[in-house]
Amino acid sequence: MMKRIGEKARSAAAELALLKPDVKNNALLAMADSFLAHREILKAENEKDLQKGREKGLSKAMLDRLLLNDKRIEKMSDALREVAALDDPVGEIYDMKIRPNGLKVARMRCPIGVIGIIYESRPDVTADAGCLCIKSGNAVILRGGSEAIHSNTIIARLMNEAGAKEGLPEGAIQIIPTTDRQAVDAMLKAREWIDLIIPRGGTELIEKVSKNSLIPVIKHYSGNCYIYVDETADPEEAVGIIVNAKTQRPGVCNALETLLIQKDIAKKFLKKLAPRLLEKGVEIRGDETVCSVVPEAVPARESDWEEEYLDLILAVKTAGSLEEATSFINKHGSHHTDAILTKDYNHAMTFLSSVDSACVLVNCSTRFSDGGEFGMGCEIGISTDKLHARGPMGLRELTTSKFVVFGNGQIRL
Amino acid sequence: MMKRIGEKARSAAAELALLKPDVKNNALLAMADSFLAHREILKAENEKDLQKGREKGLSKAMLDRLLLNDKRIEKMSDALREVAALDDPVGEIYDMKIRPNGLKVARMRCPIGVIGIIYESRPDVTADAGCLCIKSGNAVILRGGSEAIHSNTIIARLMNEAGAKEGLPEGAIQIIPTTDRQAVDAMLKAREWIDLIIPRGGTELIEKVSKNSLIPVIKHYSGNCYIYVDETADPEEAVGIIVNAKTQRPGVCNALETLLIQKDIAKKFLKKLAPRLLEKGVEIRGDETVCSVVPEAVPARESDWEEEYLDLILAVKTAGSLEEATSFINKHGSHHTDAILTKDYNHAMTFLSSVDSACVLVNCSTRFSDGGEFGMGCEIGISTDKLHARGPMGLRELTTSKFVVFGNGQIRL
Repeated sequence: MMKRIGEKARSAAAELALLKPDVKNNALLAMADSFLAHREILKAENEKDLQKGREKGLSKAMLDRLLLNDKRIEKMSDALREVAALDDPVGEIYDMKIRPNGLKVARMRCPIGVIGIIYESRPDVTADAGCLCIKSGNAVILRGGSEAIHSNTIIARLMNEAGAKEGLPEGAIQIIPTTDRQAVDAMLKAREWIDLIIPRGGTELIEKVSKNSLIPVIKHYSGNCYIYVDETADPEEAVGIIVNAKTQRPGVCNALETLLIQKDIAKKFLKKLAPRLLEKGVEIRGDETVCSVVPEAVPARESDWEEEYLDLILAVKTAGSLEEATSFINKHGSHHTDAILTKDYNHAMTFLSSVDSACVLVNCSTRFSDGGEFGMGCEIGISTDKLHARGPMGLRELTTSKFVVFGNGQIRL
Repeated sequence: MMKRIGEKARSAAAELALLKPDVKNNALLAMADSFLAHREILKAENEKDLQKGREKGLSKAMLDRLLLNDKRIEKMSDALREVAALDDPVGEIYDMKIRPNGLKVARMRCPIGVIGIIYESRPDVTADAGCLCIKSGNAVILRGGSEAIHSNTIIARLMNEAGAKEGLPEGAIQIIPTTDRQAVDAMLKAREWIDLIIPRGGTELIEKVSKNSLIPVIKHYSGNCYIYVDETADPEEAVGIIVNAKTQRPGVCNALETLLIQKDIAKKFLKKLAPRLLEKGVEIRGDETVCSVVPEAVPARESDWEEEYLDLILAVKTAGSLEEATSFINKHGSHHTDAILTKDYNHAMTFLSSVDSACVLVNCSTRFSDGGEFGMGCEIGISTDKLHARGPMGLRELTTSKFVVFGNGQIRL
């Protein structure tokens, strides 16, 4: 089965790489229309998954993630239109150097080829990941959670039918048509047909995929985001940023989880900050100094410095110096997103260089660590890996490059 | 053992990432001086490897690759000076976007961390790979061929001693101090301590490394380079380029191996080309048309279209059209370096987009496919992979990036 799917994907990828932007964009718009025109079928197929889920005793949260209602179908449709509106990354020539012999040496952005996405219960990932791969000129092989198989299959079918009418090749978007777990293993070994695997889901899934894959994997682990409040920080601005980073949407990977405060300003600053956090319902887990200033705080354990709460809980610690803070973040953080709040130029620059994370911010909320907020238009995930892509991954990160050389008769001497 | 080496490398990497360019450059220059000052020790240690190699009955070619003589020591020393003179890639901020809320979002180039190099007999790779990793701010763990262990060890020792005096951290360059084969396996599983593996050597080594590694690997397979002569090519210029690409240095990966000629001009063009190749001693292996025009040609077999000769042999075939040529190259080539010779603008642009290779050239010799010739200053290899780095890999390809965000109080609404 993997061979049949793989060969079809390879052949689709060769065609996709050369399609004009218009063809790809019209296909995405047709898919968006098709979702709206086929709401009832989408909901009926989704109901089969929900029914089975209920029988299997899935949790309420799981069932909610599975659900496709009108609002979610409209959102899925809108996302396709947004991707259609983005600039096409394929074919861009950049970074040109003129050599002494007159050769013009540059790089050209081009699709990677075939991308495999392995994900869990949310069926909208099918549409989302599928359209980003198509727009960047890649064929895609999707393997969703077994509990969403009916929903994923109908979404992919509607996308392919609509795409085919606009000139997308057959095999552009393929779903692994079985819930057999061995299919994942076959996918992870299919080096000949798949160029990149992106797992989207919990730590366990990502760990399993990256351990078993013979194909390069781009991982995105959780975010234990830190903010360090420097002794020179503007206190009012700092409080605003911290409250925003912790409470604006606590359940996501770029929410603040741990706060470090320079020790000389800790007491004064905490007196300003704590009431603002407490009134938002934030539980503070503090070190000794913090607990001595904030009576509502509970003592933090060692594990608190490494935990991603995804909840209204904040670990707070004092740090003796900038260097102590950056070392602590590099040791206990998750290399996802960390920020410094400071008015000191040298401290800002040192923090940017020293913190070994995918996103390092000065004087703003960690909640900005996001493809949309970074101006990338969309994202297929946030890579916590270092190779190929690091941080929010947009269309560009779904491409590779080749060297292109414009000559006029040069030979090597 | 791997744990001890790995921890040392990690700690060195953290320091290396923050070193000033001057410190790194002075260290490289001190290493270059040290090689020249310690010629006799280098040659004596090398002689131990040669002696053992002779006893083991290594081939003449192998023994030659092992040899360190004065000339090669000087070359190794010069290479270090050249790398010292290159621009430092670490810390460069680029690709900045100003967001509507005033956030300045950019990327900053930074070291990858710890790089593992697995290579075969040539001891100069120790110096070469070591200095490129240091210059790009990475720690490096080197595992050379067992037959070069004494040479590799003394080279690394001299580099570390000279580097330490200039402020390089201990553990910047480490050699796996055993010829035990299990050490390679341990290295390939050391995900915690090594971020990237680069194998340098034959296909067998590369294949073995990439199959067993849990760490990302950047591979560079062989080069079966193609040139396609379009019907509009300038015949005199085309002959010059083809002769250069085939004969200027036939034993390297960017030498021409297969020639496609558009069928309408094939006979006339071959009459011009064949004598020029034959006088250089090139054996022509042709399809039916070629053999009918060139009496000296021998009939090509199917395998000839895929072979990397690294010798004065050229496979020559006619192609009906540009599309036939690009399909043939994508199917039978090695995705390394391919060129078109043409005066037609649309053909040139189509070839650049359609050929799925690391380097795609118009109207120049394939021999230019090289880090030095591309203006990258040096190269650690030519990647035939698509992720992270593709084509010649210079200092920049030994770095990753992080997002850096300059704010002034922004919170997310």
